[in-house]
Amino acid sequence: MKFRLLTPGPTPVPEETLLELAKPVPFHRTPEFRQLLAEVLDDLRTVYCSKNTVIPLTSSGTGALEAALVNSVPTGKKVICLIAGRFGERWKNICKAFGLEAITVTVPYGQAVQPDQLKRALTDHPDAAAVCSTLSETSTGIGHDIAAFGKIVAQSPALLLVDAVSGLGAMECRVDDWNIDLCCTGSQKALMLPPGLAFVSVSAKAWQAIDKHDAPRAFYFDLKKARKNLENSDTPYTPAHTLVRALRVSLKKILAEGMENIWMRQARYAQAARAGFLALGLELFANPPNNALTVVKSPPGIDSTVLLTKLEKQYGLKLANGQDELKGKIFRLAHMGYIDMFDILAAISGVELVLKEMGHPVELGKGLAAAQKVFAANE
Amino acid sequence: MKFRLLTPGPTPVPEETLLELAKPVPFHRTPEFRQLLAEVLDDLRTVYCSKNTVIPLTSSGTGALEAALVNSVPTGKKVICLIAGRFGERWKNICKAFGLEAITVTVPYGQAVQPDQLKRALTDHPDAAAVCSTLSETSTGIGHDIAAFGKIVAQSPALLLVDAVSGLGAMECRVDDWNIDLCCTGSQKALMLPPGLAFVSVSAKAWQAIDKHDAPRAFYFDLKKARKNLENSDTPYTPAHTLVRALRVSLKKILAEGMENIWMRQARYAQAARAGFLALGLELFANPPNNALTVVKSPPGIDSTVLLTKLEKQYGLKLANGQDELKGKIFRLAHMGYIDMFDILAAISGVELVLKEMGHPVELGKGLAAAQKVFAANE
Repeated sequence: MKFRLLTPGPTPVPEETLLELAKPVPFHRTPEFRQLLAEVLDDLRTVYCSKNTVIPLTSSGTGALEAALVNSVPTGKKVICLIAGRFGERWKNICKAFGLEAITVTVPYGQAVQPDQLKRALTDHPDAAAVCSTLSETSTGIGHDIAAFGKIVAQSPALLLVDAVSGLGAMECRVDDWNIDLCCTGSQKALMLPPGLAFVSVSAKAWQAIDKHDAPRAFYFDLKKARKNLENSDTPYTPAHTLVRALRVSLKKILAEGMENIWMRQARYAQAARAGFLALGLELFANPPNNALTVVKSPPGIDSTVLLTKLEKQYGLKLANGQDELKGKIFRLAHMGYIDMFDILAAISGVELVLKEMGHPVELGKGLAAAQKVFAANE
Repeated sequence: MKFRLLTPGPTPVPEETLLELAKPVPFHRTPEFRQLLAEVLDDLRTVYCSKNTVIPLTSSGTGALEAALVNSVPTGKKVICLIAGRFGERWKNICKAFGLEAITVTVPYGQAVQPDQLKRALTDHPDAAAVCSTLSETSTGIGHDIAAFGKIVAQSPALLLVDAVSGLGAMECRVDDWNIDLCCTGSQKALMLPPGLAFVSVSAKAWQAIDKHDAPRAFYFDLKKARKNLENSDTPYTPAHTLVRALRVSLKKILAEGMENIWMRQARYAQAARAGFLALGLELFANPPNNALTVVKSPPGIDSTVLLTKLEKQYGLKLANGQDELKGKIFRLAHMGYIDMFDILAAISGVELVLKEMGHPVELGKGLAAAQKVFAANE
């Protein structure tokens, strides 16, 4: 049976990137590696739509969130956390761990925080040092209007920190135009690499805040030290350098297509997936949904855990369950990274077949036809 | 030209481990991955000679040092740092970054801290919360008598933290018998993997200290949270799971040989390398040298930077230079991990040829013969 990884991270990795990972290990303190790292960070700036410094970290995406927060916000300061899911919650938890006061703006899971809510929070807390948000909230599938958030935050002294781990490279995200001060991402999503690397872009406004405060909570994640080493295209500690080398391969693929083309393709995939599931009488969980993944409510009487197990065991289709209280209630299909239109058709086909098997009324092929129409309309 | 990576990290990775890295990416929140992780951590306990919990981290070895220190020692407390090189210095720098008072015991580079010096420091500072040391000080090639340190520290309330990043798996290190409370290592040394993973073993005494204090300086590196997730053979954040899967391949190789056999083989390699360089009239830099690497002084009039460049460019032999003030003055040859006796002969051969080319008096083959005699005596 052919296995298809369709979870919102990790995502499938192109064959040529995998083969790069099988190459012999080089030394990392060499002109060759420095040039490679510089090239990768340059290419990442294209993905970020930014001229900002991009700091590479050997960690999961959470390491990048911690680095962004502890370097830029001194202990005891207020941080406005916009929470629409598990990854919004993570910002709050990092604040808590490091003695920052988290002001939370929370919406029910499946919905997005509105720009007006942020505006109010900033009016109520003009002394907030930072606003933390998510681009794609992977746990629910919603997308935030980061462009609007950026406009609001730019008029305040606060920094805008964005968890773009699952969104960057899959949906529009213009770090410079949108005034994102610290934008975090990870390697295992739209960047088409295994997990192990994370990145933070740092704006001039963010560096000002970072330089002002002597973070007594960062060593491995010290961004100032990382910036200093980057002057020589180097890292303070041994990076996962074979992943960096492999990332170059995936990035060349990304840049050859171009960011706007990728965003449009992802939008088309998202539209097709939504049309397919809606045609089967299913409901979407996220409002507004983002283009990196589609999250669908399990229909009444169907436990998504059972559905997902059948999809995997019988058809090799690995979609993701809901997390925590959403487990068994939703399923999540990624379309970011190295996933194509026919993979999405495979997922819709599998869901049709399994729902039918589980006794849920489904007209076979109806979801596929609806998705196919979206593909045709966009050709 | 054939390339030979002979630096004390990263080290060469076995072909079958590299091929494992080229396999398609699986999902990580599955019973299969949980079983794999449990198996890898079990095998690592064999490498550690320990029954302690082993915590996996996605980071470089430095991340493991930070995790060990910030979780176990509250702010403001005293930490005795035994410094014999750059990695001893790193412990001190982490203390500084997190507001711990570092009491330093420093010896000239090339020498090792003596157990008596530690005893005195502990007598002078009975309130020290921890003692930080290095097993193999990679920057100079010395080895510390961690067994002796462990006996001394065990009689105090302090914890013994050991940076075993380049030593573990290459030289004798018995975490339980030697009373090492937190023992840190990284993937890219004797474990025969690319960089990206790090590990900390945590003793019962260390957990007591960790549980007593609510570290406000750890989120990504929170060991309590990691322990909780490990109950379910899981990690708090997405691990570099393809590296974990590849590590299993390297660990099976290690366990098939057995730790004592590896230590003996490494001792033989070290003895052969030392004999070879001494026979060429060169001097060793480290006293006592450890068995993970051999560090040699560049002879008068020979800049090791030139020597190393020639070794690499002309013969594909990548040895390491000294760092900081030792740059140009020493060269470092690793024999840990996936390096064999003939690789060591290749290194000696290259050094003979390049020294001769550089006008240094060398009797060709003399170093090789001396190394060969060691190999013969040990068969």
